[in-house]
Amino acid sequence: MPTDRSDLSNAAGSLDGIGLLAPLPAGERAAVARRCRWRRFHAGEQIIGHGDGEPERADVAFVVEGRVRVVSHSAGGREISFDDMEAGGFVGEMAALDGLPRSASVVAVAEGTVIAFLPARPFQELVSGHPVLARSMMLHLTGKLRLATDRIMELSTLGANNRVHAELLRLAKRGRVEGRAAVITPIPVHGDIAARVSTTRETVARVLSDLSRDGLVERRPDALVIRDLTRLERLVEDVRGGG
Amino acid sequence: MPTDRSDLSNAAGSLDGIGLLAPLPAGERAAVARRCRWRRFHAGEQIIGHGDGEPERADVAFVVEGRVRVVSHSAGGREISFDDMEAGGFVGEMAALDGLPRSASVVAVAEGTVIAFLPARPFQELVSGHPVLARSMMLHLTGKLRLATDRIMELSTLGANNRVHAELLRLAKRGRVEGRAAVITPIPVHGDIAARVSTTRETVARVLSDLSRDGLVERRPDALVIRDLTRLERLVEDVRGGG
Repeated sequence: MPTDRSDLSNAAGSLDGIGLLAPLPAGERAAVARRCRWRRFHAGEQIIGHGDGEPERADVAFVVEGRVRVVSHSAGGREISFDDMEAGGFVGEMAALDGLPRSASVVAVAEGTVIAFLPARPFQELVSGHPVLARSMMLHLTGKLRLATDRIMELSTLGANNRVHAELLRLAKRGRVEGRAAVITPIPVHGDIAARVSTTRETVARVLSDLSRDGLVERRPDALVIRDLTRLERLVEDVRGGG
Repeated sequence: MPTDRSDLSNAAGSLDGIGLLAPLPAGERAAVARRCRWRRFHAGEQIIGHGDGEPERADVAFVVEGRVRVVSHSAGGREISFDDMEAGGFVGEMAALDGLPRSASVVAVAEGTVIAFLPARPFQELVSGHPVLARSMMLHLTGKLRLATDRIMELSTLGANNRVHAELLRLAKRGRVEGRAAVITPIPVHGDIAARVSTTRETVARVLSDLSRDGLVERRPDALVIRDLTRLERLVEDVRGGG
């Protein structure tokens, strides 16, 4: 895997870490890697945009190293973010499948994020032609659709405060559970939570300070601690209704 | 196609009208039809629910005749609806693909809706094993994902009034265009619009009456007329920002 060159345009690295491609024989995966355009990105740099005419316009982007974020912006410039994708995943598959304009932008979150861009046509042939890959792609799209459906339900039925509670619960469940508590590291940035539940940074700060005062949340130097996971769960379920 | 029996459980009808299956040879499509459980539903009857243990729990549902609606309910009982599906389409593919609980219910909208239920396993084999069907399924899921993303952006950035304007614009574009006007038939039910943009019937009624007073919307006995499509478009784009 190329790690010490910033210009990777002529270096075909390895796609061995990409989950989607794991069922392929190694030789076939190496052939896919050679068809890719490789590039390293700085943190904050745009990987996929709305611009036309760019060569990567309908490419799928395999995240080989680093981490990327999928974001859109409202007319007022507010950021609405979708799921982050870690190394081993991929983004940009919607336009690569249907050829329609990009539904969102993708930016590098980690410094030195390495992307392998595969053009739309070979990507389509790859995922439709192999039954195992076809099934993986359908499961991937179905998973995204379930997350989107949950978010639509939350936006439709919960107020901003409760959406922040629900996001904290999701973060807590991915964190380290210690008895009744859950430890979230690193401390989530208010703006990131705001972008994920479509509210303002100010609302997130206010909800967190209310939860601190109630003793439900404790801010340590390096972690955010949910002191009673069950109480937070109840706070969310009471409003959502558990249906 | 069975049309005069209400109990279709032993009658294998034809799946020739199902778009997804059109690329299959006729004999193979007939074999799929024989593996289905066939049933006719009354308008308003539930086709897929959240219940466990039902035999159709993870089946995909081909809509052979009629029309169905995908809906969820908030804790307060408010209906949140997703796209309707006409004859020729299918619903329930998410649980059929991933085996997880149903994300929403499906109800028959048209009287005498005929559904062919195909169990999860043969459905998965069908759509992963045929490259053309695999590609259709991916395009289907991508299309749903784009609609969901648009809805998330609308819920995140538009107020309820503007979401009603955006829904009217979508209905108008599917309707009959006459010069600068668009004719929507049948007249949409306030509750249906409300469920699709996650607001109340009262808000829909108020927005429509405001638009009538401004002369932008005219209610005829059998149709709702948008008298100036461009003005409605501008109303939506000014707020959304066109990005």
